[in-house]
Amino acid sequence: MGKKLSILMFSGEFDKALAALVLANTAREIDMEVNMFFAFWGLLLVRDPNKLTDEDKTIYEKIIANLTPKGIEELPLSRMNFAGIGKMMLEEMMKESDTPPIEAFLKGAINKGVKLRACKLSCKVMGFKEDEFLDQVEIATAADYLDEASMADIQLFI
Amino acid sequence: MGKKLSILMFSGEFDKALAALVLANTAREIDMEVNMFFAFWGLLLVRDPNKLTDEDKTIYEKIIANLTPKGIEELPLSRMNFAGIGKMMLEEMMKESDTPPIEAFLKGAINKGVKLRACKLSCKVMGFKEDEFLDQVEIATAADYLDEASMADIQLFI
Amino acid sequence: MGKKLSILMFSGEFDKALAALVLANTAREIDMEVNMFFAFWGLLLVRDPNKLTDEDKTIYEKIIANLTPKGIEELPLSRMNFAGIGKMMLEEMMKESDTPPIEAFLKGAINKGVKLRACKLSCKVMGFKEDEFLDQVEIATAADYLDEASMADIQLFI
Repeated sequence: MGKKLSILMFSGEFDKALAALVLANTAREIDMEVNMFFAFWGLLLVRDPNKLTDEDKTIYEKIIANLTPKGIEELPLSRMNFAGIGKMMLEEMMKESDTPPIEAFLKGAINKGVKLRACKLSCKVMGFKEDEFLDQVEIATAADYLDEASMADIQLFI
Repeated sequence: MGKKLSILMFSGEFDKALAALVLANTAREIDMEVNMFFAFWGLLLVRDPNKLTDEDKTIYEKIIANLTPKGIEELPLSRMNFAGIGKMMLEEMMKESDTPPIEAFLKGAINKGVKLRACKLSCKVMGFKEDEFLDQVEIATAADYLDEASMADIQLFI
Repeated sequence: MGKKLSILMFSGEFDKALAALVLANTAREIDMEVNMFFAFWGLLLVRDPNKLTDEDKTIYEKIIANLTPKGIEELPLSRMNFAGIGKMMLEEMMKESDTPPIEAFLKGAINKGVKLRACKLSCKVMGFKEDEFLDQVEIATAADYLDEASMADIQLFI
């Protein structure tokens, strides 16, 4: 029986997203099953920048939709962001050390079969629609998450 | 045998508190046992605004007691708080999407039998007394937490 | 069979480091095996202030190495740091309540046999060398972490 990794991705920051995606990719490489459940700010990792719309949104939903990063590469750092300078530095350091960019880790996770699910309640509150997310993202409830996580060998809240 | 969820609530932010309480309520609805252990900033979720006192507190303890949110609805957002504007927006969006306010999730958790415990060491350091907390909160040690969490099916540090 | 605690230490903040080290020390006291895996900002907890070097570092690596806290006691608070005043207050409150300083918790963890490992990829990206860490720290991969964590009874991402 294969091992399972379950990540509840709550944060919407570049460095935490990178940590989660490195774990997800690595887990798939050693044949673990991987589930990622995106809630709240974590939803900002899996919006598709080409599919965003302001249709059917309230004023507040439009503000949130437009003030937040539209794709994973736009996420800020959780520390030392310095209006983007810290993040630019980190991205340069990733290049210098031949580490792939964060989009590659996200694509890798998708290609390797990491299951991506978006929290239904968070979507409802923030006004994000299912068709604004990457194609591979399914909507799921907190109960779905708990069911799945309770059968995993590792559960992380990131 | 029922499944168990164990949450170590370290953060004192509105959005993280909401995530934790949604999980706790949902877990009870699908018959999971739920334990929440409040440490450090997490203690700010379970102080009773009507029971706070400055008696027997040192200067520093008084400063902490008075500079921090006195009840769960006063917690700031972890991101985009913008001096309270971001949080006000989120609360409006919760209303618009018929999501109950955070106090309702806290009351719901209590009514559904979620076990609430406050970290003894954190209380000692921050100068919070047992009778400043909600009635349902018991003081417990880190060892108590570890004992309980090691028997849970899901452990999250939030 | 003894129980096991596995901590993925991602954050580089004083309060979160303290929480992690209190858990690690307590777990050892009740005979749990403890593994701590330091990634990203978490690496700042286990650099040895006396062993830091700028040799063989790129410009960006030098900036990161020098702008970040050089030892665990220099870490900032995750909230209410107020340019160090909040942290100073917390440290005073720890003294007043006879709580040992954070360095004592780190030394305690080492003396009690907590296993400390630093994430290889994070070291590569940030330019930290193995011999800049405390003697007890070993370099390990994300796969090593996943292997170990999947056998633990409690996994926390801090």
